[in-house]
Amino acid sequence: MACRPIGYIRCRFAQPPGTPIQTIAAPKEIARLELLPAYSAGLRDVESFEYLILITHFHLCAQERLEVTPFLDVQSHGVFATRAPARPNRLGLSIVRLLRLDELTLHFAGTDRVDGTPVLDIKPYVPRFDVRDTQRIGWFAGRLEDLACARADDRMV
Amino acid sequence: MACRPIGYIRCRFAQPPGTPIQTIAAPKEIARLELLPAYSAGLRDVESFEYLILITHFHLCAQERLEVTPFLDVQSHGVFATRAPARPNRLGLSIVRLLRLDELTLHFAGTDRVDGTPVLDIKPYVPRFDVRDTQRIGWFAGRLEDLACARADDRMV
Repeated sequence: MACRPIGYIRCRFAQPPGTPIQTIAAPKEIARLELLPAYSAGLRDVESFEYLILITHFHLCAQERLEVTPFLDVQSHGVFATRAPARPNRLGLSIVRLLRLDELTLHFAGTDRVDGTPVLDIKPYVPRFDVRDTQRIGWFAGRLEDLACARADDRMV
Repeated sequence: MACRPIGYIRCRFAQPPGTPIQTIAAPKEIARLELLPAYSAGLRDVESFEYLILITHFHLCAQERLEVTPFLDVQSHGVFATRAPARPNRLGLSIVRLLRLDELTLHFAGTDRVDGTPVLDIKPYVPRFDVRDTQRIGWFAGRLEDLACARADDRMV
């Protein structure tokens, strides 16, 4: 199947090294999504949601790997047990807080993507659909203390 | 960009009409994801997570629309303010509860997809990354009481 961008992320991170690795770790980083004009009708009512789920393309990640050492660990894992960019189809998921909509531009807080990242979809975040409670988080247990300080490096490029 | 399936969902729903519309509404529906052998190395450590996020392709949805009347409403909305299948790039997001991994087959509870749905990615669900608390859920407010009984029909095909 072919996917085409519906828009692009604009933010202050030009390259992966130094970029936050989850939006929850960078709530004060302001960025924007510039939607392509052809999709403008799809934005109606989007402003009535606080959080949006963006599906993005990890376009700078040239190589897909099945085993990877993620940014938060020193051990390798199967890529489907990680959120690493170097994954088959290179699809990313970012939950962002919508600040305002200005014609085709969605201003949001919390970014973990680099400038120019293609966006493939926007979905409204609905807690009833999207919240799960679990302690079974595999290797992430004990690896989340440093999340606020953790940044990407060039290992996925 | 080109996406290719990493596997396929197998479940008892052959067609959209009658299929649950969110996994949270169908926690007892057991299904499986049959991964293609080429991706088996990516499954290492996946069993240590309770919930997985599947990114899927709404392959039966022939037409993409920018304004759509979703299954839970009688009014139309911009498609990016809905979770409807008839969206640009037709990417779906399903959070499922992993029951067990049997070689290349992931058995899971909670399905809102039809049999044969192509899966494009598997991500581990990590509450620290994926949980947000908000009351700002737009038109969904007041439309979630009947979620457990709601089922898809043929409007998106």
